[in-house]
Amino acid sequence: MAVVRIDLAYDGTGFRGWARQRDRNVRTVEGVLTEALGKLLGDEPKLSVAGRTDAGVHAEGQVASFEADRSIDVDLGRMQRSLNGMLGPEVAVRRLRWAPAGFNARFTATGREYRYRIDTAEVPDPFAARYVWQRPGRLSVRPMRSAAAALVGERDFTSFCRLPSPTAGTVRTLRRLSVAAGGTGVEIRAEANAFLHQMVRSLVGTLVAVGEGRLPADSMGAILTARDRSAAWQIAPPRGLTLVRVRYSPRHRP
Amino acid sequence: MAVVRIDLAYDGTGFRGWARQRDRNVRTVEGVLTEALGKLLGDEPKLSVAGRTDAGVHAEGQVASFEADRSIDVDLGRMQRSLNGMLGPEVAVRRLRWAPAGFNARFTATGREYRYRIDTAEVPDPFAARYVWQRPGRLSVRPMRSAAAALVGERDFTSFCRLPSPTAGTVRTLRRLSVAAGGTGVEIRAEANAFLHQMVRSLVGTLVAVGEGRLPADSMGAILTARDRSAAWQIAPPRGLTLVRVRYSPRHRP
Repeated sequence: MAVVRIDLAYDGTGFRGWARQRDRNVRTVEGVLTEALGKLLGDEPKLSVAGRTDAGVHAEGQVASFEADRSIDVDLGRMQRSLNGMLGPEVAVRRLRWAPAGFNARFTATGREYRYRIDTAEVPDPFAARYVWQRPGRLSVRPMRSAAAALVGERDFTSFCRLPSPTAGTVRTLRRLSVAAGGTGVEIRAEANAFLHQMVRSLVGTLVAVGEGRLPADSMGAILTARDRSAAWQIAPPRGLTLVRVRYSPRHRP
Repeated sequence: MAVVRIDLAYDGTGFRGWARQRDRNVRTVEGVLTEALGKLLGDEPKLSVAGRTDAGVHAEGQVASFEADRSIDVDLGRMQRSLNGMLGPEVAVRRLRWAPAGFNARFTATGREYRYRIDTAEVPDPFAARYVWQRPGRLSVRPMRSAAAALVGERDFTSFCRLPSPTAGTVRTLRRLSVAAGGTGVEIRAEANAFLHQMVRSLVGTLVAVGEGRLPADSMGAILTARDRSAAWQIAPPRGLTLVRVRYSPRHRP
C-alpha cells in the first residue's frame, strides 16, 4: 500500500478538536476531512495524525496520512483543489503528496513544535481574540525563562499531563521551551519528540503563574518530581495554542 | 451638554452591522454598545457614529459619541474597563474621552479611510478567512491602479451606491484610492470626506473586474456618467473591508 501525506492548517475555534467522535454531529477536523475524502475516494480512509489537537486549538502545520492503493488513478493536485472547495474557509489542505513507503503521520514523526500566544494589553485586540489568550497585566519574562530552562530535557511529565495514555508512558524529551516578549504580549514555543495530553497548555499555565510572581521560578524540579497533576498550575485556554510544525527524518520526507 | 468620544475596534463577523435595529434580538455593534452604556449610565445614550458599517464589515478605528451631563461624576477610565469587560472579545473600546464642545462623531468628521484585503492564493489561509476576500487567481494590479486614479476626485458616485440617502446627495470627494500588491494578494485603500452606501465594496468589485481583464481600465468615466448602479460591477463581500481611521479637524480633537 502507498501512503498519502496531507499537510493542513485550520482555525480550531469552531471544532471540538481533531479526533472524530462517535456522535457524528460533533464537528471535528478529522470528521470533516474524513467525510470529504470519503466522497472523493468512494471509501472513508482511516487517518493517522501527528498532533491530536484539543477543542479550540489551531494548526498551521498539521500532518495527517492515510493508506491508498497507488494503482488507482488519483490526481492529487485535483483532489487537493476539490478538498479545499469542500472543506470551507476554516480548514486548508496546503499540500497533498505521495509519501515514502512506511510513512505514518503519527508514528514516524520525530518532533512537534507548538506556539502559544498571550496578549497582556489592557485593551485586547478583537482581531486576535480567537488566536491568543487575552490576559491583561504584566508578566515578568525573566523568571519565566529561568523556569522554562529547568523543564527542558528528557523527563517524566506526569505533573503536566491531564490524561496519561495507558500505552505511551509519561516520559517525553522537551527539546525547547522558549519565552519571548513581543508585540503586546508574550510568545512561548515548545518543541518535543511528542507531548502528553494538554502538556503544552499545562506548561504555559505554570509559566504564567511564575510570570505573575505567584510561583517561584525554581519550583519546577519539585513539580516534576511530584508526578501529580495537581502540582502544576492552571491550564492555559486552548485559543492561544497552535501546532506550528511536525518533523520527520529525511527518509520519511516526500 | 458635554460630549463623550468613543474610539473602538470590532470584528464585524458576528454582527448585523453597526446600526441598531428595531428587532432587538438582531445583534448589532450599536445595540451591544448602547445596552452596555445604558447599564453603566442608568439611561441608554443616543450614539452618533462616523461609519455606519454594514453586516460583516470590521473596524479598527471607528469613532462614536454621545452627549452626557458633565456635572455627573463619571470616571471614564473606569467606565472603559467596565465596557470592555461587558462587551466581550469581539468589540474593544480603545479610548473613552471627553470631546470638545460641538463634537459629533458623524457630523464633524472630515474624512474616513477604509482598507480592503483580497487574498488571491490558490490555497487560502484559514486564519485570514474572516478578514479577507478569498478570491484565488491572479489580478493585474497595473490596470487596477489606472482605473482607481480615474475615480479620485469630487464626483457623483451614484453608480457606486446601493441605497442613496434622501438627504445627503450622491457627490463625494474621493481623496485616495490606492491598489497595492503584497503578501498573497492585493490591498486597496480608499479615503473620502464620506462614502455612500456600499460605495467602497462597489469600487473594489469594479476594480477587481478590471484586474481580471473583464472590464477595461478606461471605462471608469463612462460608469460614473451613467449614474446608474447597474453600470458598476459586482459588490465585493463585506469580510475584506475594515474602517481604519476617521479624521477630524484640530478644533474637534480631544
